[in-house]
Amino acid sequence: MMNKLQNAFSHCKFEVPEIIFGRGLLGQVGSCARRLGGKKVFLVSDQGLFQAGWVDQVMQCLLNDGLAFVYYDQITPNPKDTEIEDGAREYIRQGADVIVGLGGGSAMDAAKGIAILVSNGGRIQDYEGPDKIHRPIPPLVLCPTTCGTGSDVSQFAVINDSAERRKFTIMSRCVAPDISLTDPDTLETLPDEHVCTTAADALSHAVEAYLSVASSTLTDVNAVRALRLISQSMGNAVQERRPEDMANLARASLHAGMAFSNSLLGIAHALAHPIGGLYDANHGSVNAVLLPAVVGYDLPVVSERLPELAWGLGHQTNGDVAMASEIVQESINRLLDVCNAPRSLKSLGVEEKDLPELARRAKKDVCILTSPREASESDLLDILEQVY
Amino acid sequence: MMNKLQNAFSHCKFEVPEIIFGRGLLGQVGSCARRLGGKKVFLVSDQGLFQAGWVDQVMQCLLNDGLAFVYYDQITPNPKDTEIEDGAREYIRQGADVIVGLGGGSAMDAAKGIAILVSNGGRIQDYEGPDKIHRPIPPLVLCPTTCGTGSDVSQFAVINDSAERRKFTIMSRCVAPDISLTDPDTLETLPDEHVCTTAADALSHAVEAYLSVASSTLTDVNAVRALRLISQSMGNAVQERRPEDMANLARASLHAGMAFSNSLLGIAHALAHPIGGLYDANHGSVNAVLLPAVVGYDLPVVSERLPELAWGLGHQTNGDVAMASEIVQESINRLLDVCNAPRSLKSLGVEEKDLPELARRAKKDVCILTSPREASESDLLDILEQVY
Repeated sequence: MMNKLQNAFSHCKFEVPEIIFGRGLLGQVGSCARRLGGKKVFLVSDQGLFQAGWVDQVMQCLLNDGLAFVYYDQITPNPKDTEIEDGAREYIRQGADVIVGLGGGSAMDAAKGIAILVSNGGRIQDYEGPDKIHRPIPPLVLCPTTCGTGSDVSQFAVINDSAERRKFTIMSRCVAPDISLTDPDTLETLPDEHVCTTAADALSHAVEAYLSVASSTLTDVNAVRALRLISQSMGNAVQERRPEDMANLARASLHAGMAFSNSLLGIAHALAHPIGGLYDANHGSVNAVLLPAVVGYDLPVVSERLPELAWGLGHQTNGDVAMASEIVQESINRLLDVCNAPRSLKSLGVEEKDLPELARRAKKDVCILTSPREASESDLLDILEQVY
Repeated sequence: MMNKLQNAFSHCKFEVPEIIFGRGLLGQVGSCARRLGGKKVFLVSDQGLFQAGWVDQVMQCLLNDGLAFVYYDQITPNPKDTEIEDGAREYIRQGADVIVGLGGGSAMDAAKGIAILVSNGGRIQDYEGPDKIHRPIPPLVLCPTTCGTGSDVSQFAVINDSAERRKFTIMSRCVAPDISLTDPDTLETLPDEHVCTTAADALSHAVEAYLSVASSTLTDVNAVRALRLISQSMGNAVQERRPEDMANLARASLHAGMAFSNSLLGIAHALAHPIGGLYDANHGSVNAVLLPAVVGYDLPVVSERLPELAWGLGHQTNGDVAMASEIVQESINRLLDVCNAPRSLKSLGVEEKDLPELARRAKKDVCILTSPREASESDLLDILEQVY
């Protein structure tokens, strides 16, 4: 189905924002905002980061750089349409002119949603799907504080429609920020559980981006490096929390984000979106549960890709596909187990009666388009039942 | 001197333009120019590409897309300050509003230079060094047609001061184009000799970027992939000219460009610039001559980097540094020999009496700053004498 030759010839696009990465660099957020022409920052973050002291640190930097700011933290995990609308009203009321998102995927996707509404108007649902944004959005600086979302480099925002209890995806080069600024020191205060689930999200980004039919060498190199960093540091980061392992995971998130933003994803994310929408479940946890079964489903059609995938996961197979196939499955399971990642949908509160509806919604999710293996509703249901 | 730990912690920046890559995609040049708001294209190319028919094809695409254009081909290899100034006057006189550069490093660097002058004025020498450009330049689309320059993704332009017979480097994020568009089919008409010398340039970009003290995982993944593609296809491309090998070299150039644009280079380029300035010598040929000696000079301080470098060059060393060291040197020499790359400065017309002056100038070149090993003027002279 996919082979190197095809890969070498295929058309590809690659786009990433300006990236700044390094310990202690959070203090550059003000100079980034100023460089983009901002005078009054709309700072989107969450209460956890406020309590951990990072929001304070950013506010101090902004003041030192002579910038005014408005702080907005009325957002929840799997950010809701209503929170985005409230945020946009607040941005306009306050006359802000640049947005800084500090946090995990929720804070950053909320920042993206707010940016879209303040310059384009309407409801955030109006921008669902590819290329629906027609007016430039305000300058945007995103500072990730978890090991996994990739939103800080991606061309996507995933928002929760609270009335319909469904997640929808906005896809546009416009929502890649102007600057992605990662200070891995911010991971110091991330709870163990979130180190695990956000790293599992990055793991699924890297694996799905690598196996995507839209992959290219431009995305492959980043997906494989993400896997190497995750293999090396995921267990240690959860168990020992050494700063170098945390930095490796932050870097893995960046590489995985650069990969999936340009090659898109697959069945795990196609299923994770409706589950997140219906149950407001933790996105990384859902991916941890789904990924092994989805990789098992993909295996028969991705054999030529497996040796490099195995290599990314830390194993030499000298091109032996059968060996690589086993190693890929074992390595992914081991990484998830070492971190005590959730391993069943039931444990996440998913109700068995909803599985057919989840499969039906997943079949319509945009991520299904780049799956290396076709999947019917019934195939998707099989996968869900396998990990229930 | 460099180790993985240091690498994991170091601060890094990474910035690349929007990239479009694929066979047959040259026809998208018009839609790229339009998307950037252009109505009248200033098309910079050279007579070789005109004769090969590619300029005609681009002109036809521009017309089909409803764009007016002005064609400018008064540029020579190692583009001169005077050519840039003439081009800028022509751009202004004709009222163009977007620049397309089609060609090798000379056409693309000339396009960058013209873009700088039309919006910033003055002489092109005024912009030598880092961050001297203060006004936004016109939208820029660069279409590489060789295997090596990387100018289509880089934040550099190298221009020849014709009075002083020296090359100088302009470094600014401004000169990375808006869009890098590679159609590897354009390599079909590249003479064998230039396939070899431009691939040697990409080889030296990849090796120097990988060994640079400013490297990071973001640049490493691209440098190593470039090496893998070059190892796989450089010999075949020159000998058999199969389209898939040509496409691999075009892709290698892109990866190597993404690497060196963000991690900078080393001694080979520091020496290549004065040689190019003084003798108007072919840049790829000069790098082919210098690279083996420079790698030999660097080896003692880059031992931890060698196994991955050897792996990029196609060899497993299981972390054995001594083996990797030999393999790296052998592989580079073999690649250059298979293509009949020039192997001595004398054969390029360099005069022995000038070597001390070349070493003196190289010591002041910006590329020396990121060399993994310090080099005095006398060390640089030793290297020059070694490959004379």
